[in-house]
Amino acid sequence: MTRAAQMLETYPGDFGFDAAALAECIAACQECAQTCTACADACLAEEQVADLRSCITHNLNCAAVCTAAAAVLSRQTAYDDAVTRAVLEACAAACRACGDECAHHGEMGMEHCRVCADACRRCEQACRALLAAAS
Amino acid sequence: MTRAAQMLETYPGDFGFDAAALAECIAACQECAQTCTACADACLAEEQVADLRSCITHNLNCAAVCTAAAAVLSRQTAYDDAVTRAVLEACAAACRACGDECAHHGEMGMEHCRVCADACRRCEQACRALLAAAS
Amino acid sequence: MTRAAQMLETYPGDFGFDAAALAECIAACQECAQTCTACADACLAEEQVADLRSCITHNLNCAAVCTAAAAVLSRQTAYDDAVTRAVLEACAAACRACGDECAHHGEMGMEHCRVCADACRRCEQACRALLAAAS
Amino acid sequence: MTRAAQMLETYPGDFGFDAAALAECIAACQECAQTCTACADACLAEEQVADLRSCITHNLNCAAVCTAAAAVLSRQTAYDDAVTRAVLEACAAACRACGDECAHHGEMGMEHCRVCADACRRCEQACRALLAAAS
Repeated sequence: MTRAAQMLETYPGDFGFDAAALAECIAACQECAQTCTACADACLAEEQVADLRSCITHNLNCAAVCTAAAAVLSRQTAYDDAVTRAVLEACAAACRACGDECAHHGEMGMEHCRVCADACRRCEQACRALLAAAS
Repeated sequence: MTRAAQMLETYPGDFGFDAAALAECIAACQECAQTCTACADACLAEEQVADLRSCITHNLNCAAVCTAAAAVLSRQTAYDDAVTRAVLEACAAACRACGDECAHHGEMGMEHCRVCADACRRCEQACRALLAAAS
Repeated sequence: MTRAAQMLETYPGDFGFDAAALAECIAACQECAQTCTACADACLAEEQVADLRSCITHNLNCAAVCTAAAAVLSRQTAYDDAVTRAVLEACAAACRACGDECAHHGEMGMEHCRVCADACRRCEQACRALLAAAS
Repeated sequence: MTRAAQMLETYPGDFGFDAAALAECIAACQECAQTCTACADACLAEEQVADLRSCITHNLNCAAVCTAAAAVLSRQTAYDDAVTRAVLEACAAACRACGDECAHHGEMGMEHCRVCADACRRCEQACRALLAAAS
């Protein structure tokens, strides 16, 4: 059991989501934030960094949004549906855009972009699963 | 001229927004992030902290989203309209919810909540102004 | 293998740390950031929230510093030893203080604080291990 | 009066720092975080991006640490001296390193780096002033 799942088990109140889906989305947001930060850094180290400008921006934006989403999802006290949904939509949008960009470079042989695209896809799916469950 | 406006003047490319509106939105996001962080802390120091749980959560969520929005808006290279719009929507939603909550406590005499509500209103308006300009 | 370890394997340059120690520290920082965010939220939901003010502040500070440390450690291009060391020291200090506070409440029966203390101890140790390796 | 100074005026408890010095340091951290984020983005847009790799990394690290420092300084409830000092040291180190790097590129004609160096110097000084006052 992950620490995030342990924390949900010890939470003294109720929460609106299925615990497993919520723990998965938090984990996916954190993984995606770190992977995107590392992918931006790896792109920066590549010889053809000039061709990776768009990837670096998408990586950094996706990392920023995923970090915020992980924090918002980790708070269940006084849960607000409208805020949570808007944050999940923003996170899914950032993951979609970054995942598309990284998948393209991954097909060209950039391994860090291929790994990053996987993290973005997992996170986008986890956000959309929570959105579907919340509606 | 703020440092954010100076940075926009020295940016080597083009950007899709009016520079003054963009600088105002970045400044408003940063101000709101700090004010919300400080308001959560002031609520925590109040005797009636138990009545301010919802305010603290809104403050912390709003601070997280405003921080992410300020970072995304500060990046103009390889600008992505869908990501920016989703982030602005999330920021406006967080500011709306936090501003409503803080305004309520401000009317009850909580001065830090009154100041924080002002920061949330300014930020929500700045986000909506950029959204209107981008459409 | 974690995604962080995969990203280190695909990094196109060299990095100064042992890959396993670096991946462990990044993972520990991320886990601690999330656990502390969730612990602050669980403390806020407790009836005796007024007795947990110090714990909430420590949680929020530790989460902020761990988030920054995870990001700095995820960047290896143009690695700077002085910055990395100062960030690791700050992260270890925040984890030490938060871990002590949470361990105290954990002994009193607060389960989320007990779990959080474990995350703080793991992260402090991982930061100190990297500091020792870097010297 | 800035909103940060207003928030300090409405804080219901005491705080260990001179209010003006604290408000200046919070403002400097926030300004530096935004300026560094924008400078990384401007560097990325430059033709000679390959020569600016080190500057981009310093910018991103400095932005991450300044964001964390602004948040920690914005919390005065259950103030912890050891954590605050370690965070201020980390912020001063990140600002020193980024300021040196940006000053170098500023002298070569990169205007955004020149502006960013000013923000880093202001923030480093504000952190050191608080550290001196706290000792």
